Amino acid sequence: MRIAQLEIHPAQLEAYKAALREEIKASLSLEPGVLALYAVSLKDNPTQIWIFETYAGKDAYESHLKTPHFLRYKTATQHMVKTLKLVEADSIQIDAKPM
Amino acid sequence: MRIAQLEIHPAQLEAYKAALREEIKASLSLEPGVLALYAVSLKDNPTQIWIFETYAGKDAYESHLKTPHFLRYKTATQHMVKTLKLVEADSIQIDAKPM
Repeated sequence: MRIAQLEIHPAQLEAYKAALREEIKASLSLEPGVLALYAVSLKDNPTQIWIFETYAGKDAYESHLKTPHFLRYKTATQHMVKTLKLVEADSIQIDAKPM
Repeated sequence: MRIAQLEIHPAQLEAYKAALREEIKASLSLEPGVLALYAVSLKDNPTQIWIFETYAGKDAYESHLKTPHFLRYKTATQHMVKTLKLVEADSIQIDAKPM
């Protein structure tokens, strides 16, 4: 489990969100080891994006970083991201209804 | 979508996590309008607990606050919680595999 906290340049916010949506859809449909990706923007400050990321394990995460869709997202968005902070976390209880 | 950020008194951390687990399990199994609850503790600071909460809508959230299991959790944990910060958020893209 990891939380990515990003700040996006305001002028690029819509382009960034479109790229992120594509990346999340591709990751969930193509990678068995990507279990959940929750991306939200903060209501009081919409250029702040938080992404909750759940992987099956370390290997699944390492392999995710090498996929064409992740590399495409990373390249496309590198100049849109002002700051990026990664917070490592341990699961306490994760429950969700089927989507 | 909401993120709750809590700091728990270290001596009560295990008791708090047990109460939170019960509350999450009850909410997901008993309330159709509670779509997902993701609770994690930060690796670098395990008394910091973050909970990602997804409800079907405002009504579902209001009704959640009145359920016996939520009220029991709230009462049981009120002295365990040092600080509580609520961050409102808007969904960008939420994808997860069936659990």
